[in-house]
Amino acid sequence: MSTAGPPIRGPSVKGIPEGDNRERMICAECGYILYDNPKVVVGSVARWGERILLCRRSINPRRGFWTLPAGYLELGESTSAGAEREAWEEAQTRILIEGLLAVYDIPRISQVQLIYRARLIEERFAPGPESLEVRLFGWDEIPWSEIAFSSVHWALHHHREAQASGDFTTRTSAPDPATLARKAL
Amino acid sequence: MSTAGPPIRGPSVKGIPEGDNRERMICAECGYILYDNPKVVVGSVARWGERILLCRRSINPRRGFWTLPAGYLELGESTSAGAEREAWEEAQTRILIEGLLAVYDIPRISQVQLIYRARLIEERFAPGPESLEVRLFGWDEIPWSEIAFSSVHWALHHHREAQASGDFTTRTSAPDPATLARKAL
Repeated sequence: MSTAGPPIRGPSVKGIPEGDNRERMICAECGYILYDNPKVVVGSVARWGERILLCRRSINPRRGFWTLPAGYLELGESTSAGAEREAWEEAQTRILIEGLLAVYDIPRISQVQLIYRARLIEERFAPGPESLEVRLFGWDEIPWSEIAFSSVHWALHHHREAQASGDFTTRTSAPDPATLARKAL
Repeated sequence: MSTAGPPIRGPSVKGIPEGDNRERMICAECGYILYDNPKVVVGSVARWGERILLCRRSINPRRGFWTLPAGYLELGESTSAGAEREAWEEAQTRILIEGLLAVYDIPRISQVQLIYRARLIEERFAPGPESLEVRLFGWDEIPWSEIAFSSVHWALHHHREAQASGDFTTRTSAPDPATLARKAL
């Protein structure tokens, strides 16, 4: 590094590149333009019998809180393959994907979440490196006050509603607040 | 730039960062790590009456071929807002979104496409900077041999099938080849 002053680490200056119509982050050192885009999160509501698999997070944000096995889609990966990989990485379990439960837009954090319905192939799971604990929960046992993210609430309720009604169409927005308030059916 | 040799432009060296389990592109100059992820494409099959809006591309890839108004989702944008923006940018038209027609995984190019069903708010459209021409096509008028991408074929057929059957559930994979071969119903 040749310049004085604080170290520059990658694209850290705002500017509108030629032919573009938005500000992008540009590297002051080499001119590299970062075309940053929203990220895709893939995951699953995976059941064994009537119980749902949840993972207690070993990492921040929301360390110690319960979540679905889910994470960022990787390059070259299909969304269903990504959901299977996350179930393996976070809960050391193999799942069988049944359909796309929901697509949740979370523009505030530039995420699109795709959550699949799935079942465990066998009753075998264990915490991966990002989990403290992995467990199956009946609906009435779910630790509602210790759920990591709103979208986990949404997916659990959408899954419950789909199983009860037999309507497996893909959900595209959060359930209404009255439904979410109804923790125990 | 301080080093001799060919210019380095941004993350251009492969390496596995500490605590990660995959190769990422790293900038040899400043150590910046690029966490590149799949991109989300949002678009619509938008109709006016029975006819569908298509845009003839003014840019590569596939310049001169016909496509749906679609493009990359931007940071901080919901997928439906992105589809509306693309209809405006590419076809200078306002659309009303009706539902999520399809989610297509295209892992070969690390894309997830979300295609909405929509209708034009008024019969008013014009080519934006990325289009040579914008037109409404009845099913029998669609220029099948000049369609830009496979996923445009998929979405047109899925849309046709949904309108005919009244089954508006979100499609998650390409239609079968026999359906695709049936250009004129």
